[in-house]
Amino acid sequence: MKTRIGILGYGNIGKGTEIAVADSDDMELAAVFTRRDPDDVKILTAGVPVLSADVIEDWKDKIDVLVLCGGSATDLPVQTPKYAKLFNVIDSFDTHAKIPEHFSNVDAAAKEGGHLAFIAVGWDPGMFSLNRVYANAILPDGKDYTFWGKGVSQGHSDAVRRIKGVKNAKQYTIPSEEALEAVRSGKNPELKTRDKHIRECFVVLEPGADAAMVEKEIKEMPNYFADYNTVVHFIDEDEFIKDHSGMSHGGFVFRSGKTGVNKENKHIIEYSIKLDSNPEFTTSVIIAYARALKKMFDEGARGCKTVLDIPPSYLCRQSPEELRSQFL
Amino acid sequence: MKTRIGILGYGNIGKGTEIAVADSDDMELAAVFTRRDPDDVKILTAGVPVLSADVIEDWKDKIDVLVLCGGSATDLPVQTPKYAKLFNVIDSFDTHAKIPEHFSNVDAAAKEGGHLAFIAVGWDPGMFSLNRVYANAILPDGKDYTFWGKGVSQGHSDAVRRIKGVKNAKQYTIPSEEALEAVRSGKNPELKTRDKHIRECFVVLEPGADAAMVEKEIKEMPNYFADYNTVVHFIDEDEFIKDHSGMSHGGFVFRSGKTGVNKENKHIIEYSIKLDSNPEFTTSVIIAYARALKKMFDEGARGCKTVLDIPPSYLCRQSPEELRSQFL
Repeated sequence: MKTRIGILGYGNIGKGTEIAVADSDDMELAAVFTRRDPDDVKILTAGVPVLSADVIEDWKDKIDVLVLCGGSATDLPVQTPKYAKLFNVIDSFDTHAKIPEHFSNVDAAAKEGGHLAFIAVGWDPGMFSLNRVYANAILPDGKDYTFWGKGVSQGHSDAVRRIKGVKNAKQYTIPSEEALEAVRSGKNPELKTRDKHIRECFVVLEPGADAAMVEKEIKEMPNYFADYNTVVHFIDEDEFIKDHSGMSHGGFVFRSGKTGVNKENKHIIEYSIKLDSNPEFTTSVIIAYARALKKMFDEGARGCKTVLDIPPSYLCRQSPEELRSQFL
Repeated sequence: MKTRIGILGYGNIGKGTEIAVADSDDMELAAVFTRRDPDDVKILTAGVPVLSADVIEDWKDKIDVLVLCGGSATDLPVQTPKYAKLFNVIDSFDTHAKIPEHFSNVDAAAKEGGHLAFIAVGWDPGMFSLNRVYANAILPDGKDYTFWGKGVSQGHSDAVRRIKGVKNAKQYTIPSEEALEAVRSGKNPELKTRDKHIRECFVVLEPGADAAMVEKEIKEMPNYFADYNTVVHFIDEDEFIKDHSGMSHGGFVFRSGKTGVNKENKHIIEYSIKLDSNPEFTTSVIIAYARALKKMFDEGARGCKTVLDIPPSYLCRQSPEELRSQFL
């Protein structure tokens, strides 16, 4: 029997989840729930109902894993504990500093409801966290580095768009090649904020706006840009639409460690991703973990778990025998 | 109480295990067992006995995890099942094609003895296997690439040393930069053997040997070199000892996959390692898994397992709470 997936929230993550389910022959999409008027939400999969989030409880016995596709700022802190009482749930909560609190809330709710919940599933947190943990376990004496990009930062793009005279803007976070090379070479550099990432902005001005003023305002903006090397490009709307509508992203996780009687041997572990679609990669991770969730729930696991708790083989469709002969 | 580690076989892997245990404050080395005369084996750790492998059974209750440090060709296929009846064991068996058979033998023996065994722990098989499995689970529609090196291939070095007129030789396997770049760029190239790796040989000749003949014999050697682009350097013995005595190695695992309604989005996952000491990195992986083995044995796990079966958090000294707040 296929694992029945429900989706709550049909933005980029909801749509990506739908696509990932369609690519998984052991899963089927049961229903999409929305807080909008369901008539306004058109999904890709024929024959799957789009329903108001108000009726979600009626689906308690018709969904194996509910994927929560809301935002981390205000949606998920409320939704994940709420729905973990009713369903097995999985979210991509990504406010790193609040993960312990979110974990406690979701764990209590899932245990109360007799369900299993996975939180913080995606690439960071998610695949990057896994790589930090594996690499730290292997090389206890070492240094960690995480770089993000090249990719769009939504928060920084919003900040530029709020400047007077700016019609539209995209901000790319770009890891510094020099910093990457220093880490790769085993130099274990001490990197300041400014050393790690460059911020590149593509800006469409309102008619008559003062480019020099806008550029100055961007570069001096505290927290967002003042601590970085920032490059600003002014482009016209056509170019903006043509070249800057994508959702690509990426990043790097390094561990640089030492072993040996006199710590004379250096080792570098590097994990990197380069993604055409940030939301589709994130939801591909989520759906692999939804598979693991169903298996662990069937085996009796309850409460909240993260990627750190899940045996890798549980993510796969293949049997343990197939995995050992194909991949080990 | 510390996890008590035993070592069977004191070559490069045995010594690396000893060093990794010394770096782990939750472990202690109980004893080293050897098939040689114990008086001929000098170890690094003061106060730890070196004993004949013949008396190993007396240590049944004094060792939590026995690390088997023999070779994959003839030692481990016999040793791992044999000792899994008496001890919890871990090995770095690396003959990929024979893993299913080895698994069955070890699983039966470990279950018979009421023990837990981990096999094929290291970097390939091991960390590379993990990365293949995670990446395949996330991107089911894609292509895998594994490159090895730059590093010494023992088998190829031996083959060169067997040529008449060769006094000493080291062979490095080097991934082709061009092939790496083609994979990284998402081109999904079809790579032949010759395209993926270059073989570079450093050769010390016997006095009076014919360099041209030796070079020809290397380059035309079937299986070992004939299918590769091979570069041969002749050097003197001093340079050989100075520059080619190391045990560095490395490698790359890629998954290049597609997602999207029309498979329009490409994603590249790349994992790579660059190691000054191949055996010390391998044993660092083994010791992290020895920690997991002890935990899983205490929880009741029995039989044979591989890295694919182990939750990542089990490798770590830190508590689940610490892992979530530090690494997630």
